[in-house]
Amino acid sequence: MIGVVATLKVQPAKAAEFEKVFLDLAAKVKANEPGCLVYQLTRSKTEEGVYKVLELYASMDALKHHGGTDYFKAAGAAMGPTMAGAPVIEYLDAVE
Amino acid sequence: MIGVVATLKVQPAKAAEFEKVFLDLAAKVKANEPGCLVYQLTRSKTEEGVYKVLELYASMDALKHHGGTDYFKAAGAAMGPTMAGAPVIEYLDAVE
Repeated sequence: MIGVVATLKVQPAKAAEFEKVFLDLAAKVKANEPGCLVYQLTRSKTEEGVYKVLELYASMDALKHHGGTDYFKAAGAAMGPTMAGAPVIEYLDAVE
Repeated sequence: MIGVVATLKVQPAKAAEFEKVFLDLAAKVKANEPGCLVYQLTRSKTEEGVYKVLELYASMDALKHHGGTDYFKAAGAAMGPTMAGAPVIEYLDAVE
């Protein structure tokens, strides 16, 4: 199992637009990716415009599959204009 | 729903001891806390001794209950000697 914490910096004025696109993506992930065990958008309580996506994947294959889906790529393109900086993606090994 | 990312710095020489205590705690959390939706220990791929616990709670009450359990307090005491620094606990608002 693999963990991911993705830190996204969003332009505060575009937060609503970002959240709408992301929640649509999250619904598609949940509907189509049994290997994606957790895919939860969260909002920082202390830093405006900062979001963290908490993710867990059953395997490296599940993670790779996620990144290769059309809807993931389309969401990435749609979210691009709402970003305030490059995302920081941290990959973690689950301890079981 | 509430997200938590807890960053724990563990003395590399005591990693095995830490993991044993934590996994025992995680089993108790899963068995006793229906309000704790995710409680996953992960290990950094880049920083030795650094762990991140990815957590999701159904409510603030569930989070408070978690912190007040005897087994959580006992695990905290048992993990203390394995730490290499103070934990950093980040609370996040889930976006739904």
